[in-house]
Amino acid sequence: MKLAVIGSGNIGKSIGTWAAASGYEVVFSARNLQHAQEAAKAAGHNASAASVSEAIKEAGMVLLAVPYGATKELLTELRPLLKGKVIIDPTNALNADFSGLAIGFTTSAAEEIAKVVPEAKVVKAFNTIFASIFASQTSKIKGNTISVFYAGDDKEAKAEVAALISKLGFDAVDSGPLAASRLIEPLALLNISLGYGLGHGTSIGFSFVR
Amino acid sequence: MKLAVIGSGNIGKSIGTWAAASGYEVVFSARNLQHAQEAAKAAGHNASAASVSEAIKEAGMVLLAVPYGATKELLTELRPLLKGKVIIDPTNALNADFSGLAIGFTTSAAEEIAKVVPEAKVVKAFNTIFASIFASQTSKIKGNTISVFYAGDDKEAKAEVAALISKLGFDAVDSGPLAASRLIEPLALLNISLGYGLGHGTSIGFSFVR
Repeated sequence: MKLAVIGSGNIGKSIGTWAAASGYEVVFSARNLQHAQEAAKAAGHNASAASVSEAIKEAGMVLLAVPYGATKELLTELRPLLKGKVIIDPTNALNADFSGLAIGFTTSAAEEIAKVVPEAKVVKAFNTIFASIFASQTSKIKGNTISVFYAGDDKEAKAEVAALISKLGFDAVDSGPLAASRLIEPLALLNISLGYGLGHGTSIGFSFVR
Repeated sequence: MKLAVIGSGNIGKSIGTWAAASGYEVVFSARNLQHAQEAAKAAGHNASAASVSEAIKEAGMVLLAVPYGATKELLTELRPLLKGKVIIDPTNALNADFSGLAIGFTTSAAEEIAKVVPEAKVVKAFNTIFASIFASQTSKIKGNTISVFYAGDDKEAKAEVAALISKLGFDAVDSGPLAASRLIEPLALLNISLGYGLGHGTSIGFSFVR
């Protein structure tokens, strides 16, 4: 299945590049097509670039690698193209100074995104891991495989996202329905807090051991 | 430092017994003194039993092993005895059917507890681990050391709780101020959800890898 990456920031470039290196066909896209072309060129084999709408049309799975604050306007515009598509949501709705979540408990970024594009199949994933880990194409830290917690309401969409997670070498942990994003998004903030405020740096992650 | 355990449920008995086996002096307490005496007898060496107020008077550190819903009334009554004490809060404010948290995002169980006993030093800890793991006195699962995320506003209190966590063989992860309980409490619900709803059972945990 082809993966469209929306957004040319660190998350989009690093996951997209790694997915391409792992055998996925990846089409990078961004508001600024030149940024998408640069990302595709850097990724090399299996990678191409297109406008955001073209990328979505080509792909079955869409990585929404844009800041949470930009998702509503973007998805409202793109909604007609997203029917039946799998949307991977790696966003976190952080407040202005990154010290906390802007929403939570009674909803989540993923659920708000799903409300905007109800015909798409939103799967929360990849939000608890720093972009630098994706960039280094490493799914292990000191021998421990990092877990990617994913959540969604569509079984097949989840299976496709789980396959991508596993392809990258991560431990794919089915964490339940999309509403479980209310639990996974706080974990991302814990990750950010441990990495920055508490000094562990960005080569960190969580392993679900069982 | 002597550890008082309040509550004779699985969490109190299992952590208290293990702490005693690890060299801590532990005084078990419960509304029903007989339950505390049974717990102390089962724990054996280093363990004793007392009324709740006597136990608190003897100890510097208090494990609040009661359901969250019982904490407010209990602590309001005990408040005069708790000045300067370290309170370890392993509670989770679950809703009636255990499907979600009853509070969160703008507050946490730990912060609500701290509001009731502002003269005590509340440290969130042990809430993301099943009682059966404490009962088995195992801090590793398949070779992976389980992390205990702890949070609090008093540096010395946190150091004392971290020492207990480490003594039991867990990986003690300083997760920041008490407000970080807003992140650690959702992680507990993820743990419960993975263990029960998603079928992984209770021999599970999270490792913070770095």
